Amino acid sequence: MNEKTLGILGGVGPLATVYFADLIVKMTPADCDQDHIRTIVSNNPKIPDRTDYILDNTKPNPLPVMIKDAKMLESLGCDYIAIPCNTAHFFFDEIQKNISVELINIVEETVKFASDNVPNLQKLGILATSGTLHSRVYEHVCERFGIECCIPTDSETDRLMHIIYNEVKAGKPSSHKELFSIIDSMKERGCDAVVLGCTELSAIYYELGTQRVDIVDSMTSLAAACVKRIKNGVINI
Amino acid sequence: MNEKTLGILGGVGPLATVYFADLIVKMTPADCDQDHIRTIVSNNPKIPDRTDYILDNTKPNPLPVMIKDAKMLESLGCDYIAIPCNTAHFFFDEIQKNISVELINIVEETVKFASDNVPNLQKLGILATSGTLHSRVYEHVCERFGIECCIPTDSETDRLMHIIYNEVKAGKPSSHKELFSIIDSMKERGCDAVVLGCTELSAIYYELGTQRVDIVDSMTSLAAACVKRIKNGVINI
Repeated sequence: MNEKTLGILGGVGPLATVYFADLIVKMTPADCDQDHIRTIVSNNPKIPDRTDYILDNTKPNPLPVMIKDAKMLESLGCDYIAIPCNTAHFFFDEIQKNISVELINIVEETVKFASDNVPNLQKLGILATSGTLHSRVYEHVCERFGIECCIPTDSETDRLMHIIYNEVKAGKPSSHKELFSIIDSMKERGCDAVVLGCTELSAIYYELGTQRVDIVDSMTSLAAACVKRIKNGVINI
Repeated sequence: MNEKTLGILGGVGPLATVYFADLIVKMTPADCDQDHIRTIVSNNPKIPDRTDYILDNTKPNPLPVMIKDAKMLESLGCDYIAIPCNTAHFFFDEIQKNISVELINIVEETVKFASDNVPNLQKLGILATSGTLHSRVYEHVCERFGIECCIPTDSETDRLMHIIYNEVKAGKPSSHKELFSIIDSMKERGCDAVVLGCTELSAIYYELGTQRVDIVDSMTSLAAACVKRIKNGVINI
């Protein structure tokens, strides 16, 4: 009964948040309800858009609301907090500074997952929002791991932003073929694997139910890290 | 920004809770993150088993933990609370007594949904846990709606309990054919429609993605009621 509790600072976006919570359930080894991990999910889609602010800081700042939600989760007894949104990790240090419990870092966990699982990984493609690309969070972590980063072209980024904002976040059917064609282009440019570095892209991949060793999913990497922390390293694959 | 917040008192079981949260997202008419409903989900699978206690009150009582979770959700500013678990509705009045905000009743909403949507509804079959059947919550509500209730045979209930506990709650593949054979038997016994009156059964139906007018799903009925309350009657079908 003293097992640790996971806080999910979500809403960014709301669909990715519920898929992330679903992954936590499915990755937990359990024979009955009581074997599962207690989670508290703040699915707060009213948080101002992260990319909007990163690209133009006269726009509403999402940080104060995210700090408030993180503090709320901590005050409810959460031992770990995860944010299933890559773009929000621009604000990671500021949020972590305001709480005492560990904020599990999706970028760190994804690059670590890639490094552990992709054979002979040298060059990693990063599919993400323009906010995430602008903030260079993946480049900084990859550098520490000695991995070269490859980012999409401007035209590919526009196509990704369309999929993320006008399809997934808008509740419309998503162009998975378009997504896979960008992945293929990145591979043709020499990437050994490609990161789905936006949880809306993870949502598309999750719905398809496929698994490819050359696609490293940030949502899955974060969920695996959370379950491992709480279940002492044991997870369902 | 003053839109109302939904609290989800979940964990009973954890998979049904995330599917319920997913339904809330998918039923909400939204073009962007910010159009979605703020929800706070307490996915607390450590709550003692409801059926165990209903059938034998020397077993651990889930009520104190459910009251604690409901009060927590209320204190966080939730305007409505929903429990995506039919069996837990045995404790409905006791939980409602301890909070001031509306606890939306899955049984009421399901019977209302059936009454509104099934043409010439006279006889309604109820597939549920032995705890829900024992507590007769569906019979009491159906009586008020002038609908006759039909419950499964003992052997059918045993088969349903196996699906609910040994398959869905245990994270195993579920026998949807077995579930549909029980639905067919209920229809042969004169039911105009059959209620999936256990959210683990809803989870199976949700994964299949089928829709039948003679199957009334309690999880969907509750989600529709929640979104309607917050979005002034407008939902995505």
